[in-house]
Amino acid sequence: MPIVSLGICQMPVVEEKKENLKTAAAYVAAAAVRGCRIVILPEMFNCPYQTELFAAYAESYPDGETLQLLGELAARHRVVLVGGSIPERDSAGRIYNTCFVFGREGNLLAKYRKIHLFDVAIAQGAQFQESAVITAGSAGTVLTVDGLCLGVAICYDIRFPELARAMVLQGADILIYPAAFSPVTGPVHWELLLRARAVDNQVFTVGVSPGATPGAVYQPYGHSLAVDPWGDLLGQCGSQEELLCVAVDLTRLQKVRQELPLLQHRRPDLY
Amino acid sequence: MPIVSLGICQMPVVEEKKENLKTAAAYVAAAAVRGCRIVILPEMFNCPYQTELFAAYAESYPDGETLQLLGELAARHRVVLVGGSIPERDSAGRIYNTCFVFGREGNLLAKYRKIHLFDVAIAQGAQFQESAVITAGSAGTVLTVDGLCLGVAICYDIRFPELARAMVLQGADILIYPAAFSPVTGPVHWELLLRARAVDNQVFTVGVSPGATPGAVYQPYGHSLAVDPWGDLLGQCGSQEELLCVAVDLTRLQKVRQELPLLQHRRPDLY
Repeated sequence: MPIVSLGICQMPVVEEKKENLKTAAAYVAAAAVRGCRIVILPEMFNCPYQTELFAAYAESYPDGETLQLLGELAARHRVVLVGGSIPERDSAGRIYNTCFVFGREGNLLAKYRKIHLFDVAIAQGAQFQESAVITAGSAGTVLTVDGLCLGVAICYDIRFPELARAMVLQGADILIYPAAFSPVTGPVHWELLLRARAVDNQVFTVGVSPGATPGAVYQPYGHSLAVDPWGDLLGQCGSQEELLCVAVDLTRLQKVRQELPLLQHRRPDLY
Repeated sequence: MPIVSLGICQMPVVEEKKENLKTAAAYVAAAAVRGCRIVILPEMFNCPYQTELFAAYAESYPDGETLQLLGELAARHRVVLVGGSIPERDSAGRIYNTCFVFGREGNLLAKYRKIHLFDVAIAQGAQFQESAVITAGSAGTVLTVDGLCLGVAICYDIRFPELARAMVLQGADILIYPAAFSPVTGPVHWELLLRARAVDNQVFTVGVSPGATPGAVYQPYGHSLAVDPWGDLLGQCGSQEELLCVAVDLTRLQKVRQELPLLQHRRPDLY
């Protein structure tokens, strides 16, 4: 299966959780109709990206309504569903920013809890203290499905080249980043980081943001995109909501790695 | 000394070594006149970038004519001179792709032997087997001068985020890459890589290439550039020869690291 179609769901995220679940369901259905076998939702797709709301929207696996729905959608449409992220509550009451991935039988394939929490204070820009509410995860996540190895991380994680490299050394062919970059850092860093991770690691990278939501407190940058292992853009959204489908051809990855054997040229004896 | 002017010498490289030394001397003098305190030459500035020529152009420290000249130029113009690279022969006859850095007294401050050798075969593009002639170095190099910490690496080294990160964790404020990217990889990767290393590590990055040389076998991409810790371009050459002077303001680095404390957010416990 060298060519796989990915569905990138740049959906809007509103205040009502049920409305967000309806939107997600519609996007997944539309992606399946268009032949996508892997469908990806954005970071915090069931909840506005405001730390003060995370506790109220948090769910636990397996009973949470969002998680139930994701399993049903994956099974109904026979897709691998990379469920962006939601606030997850564990049995001790801690909250994580977690990506759940479901398989074509509706089974949970993997979950990833965001490792790097977004605590920043940019002058005239983003002020955010994710760690005030969210507990950091403690492990990277790669999973193999249909012979394709996916690495999953979330938003701010993309700023850390070590994590991308670790996932690739574990075999990842595609690095998937549900995210919600801001209009301050988005224009300067979003595409740059996704292209850099792709070129450095000779993998496909995919960044999936929510689309603009009129009236919402937090307006994400949008511009979801997919990049090939040479750094070329396979497709990119604008700032508005959009379903973007891109074809990923794994022979491209093999060709790039053969011509420029970067990963073999690493010097782990020196760093 | 928060603001330092860097002289980026995008000089042409011809077949005659003596002509290249004359050109380098003129560039360094011109940079000094323009107030540059750190002057940087490109990769293999005394020798065309053709592996079959490296042995004939190789020199040993301290007696090699190029190395003598670099020390003299640094002392005469009272600059820190990052001597791009030359083929260096060691006492055992091995050849390295080496950057020698001289201080304002003409003293050798540091030398760096290229760690990652460029062995590639891109279809319809660059074919190169540097390791057929060159021995790889075995250590990264950072040096401190006037309270400013410089990390030095060469060309293909920039493709390895681990090396950049290691230099930054050792304190580098500016990563300097003498290089000679090709017209195949240059347009797609050169600026991307320099901007990515800058943004990931919140440092200044500088890439210094030779300029176009009419009639030469190897035509470098050129486009030498400097990037600030937010990823913004401070200046960039075209493909022709050019002296580019850029001012580096270290308070910019401090501000970026304060607003977005990436280096503190690393999770070395996990990767």
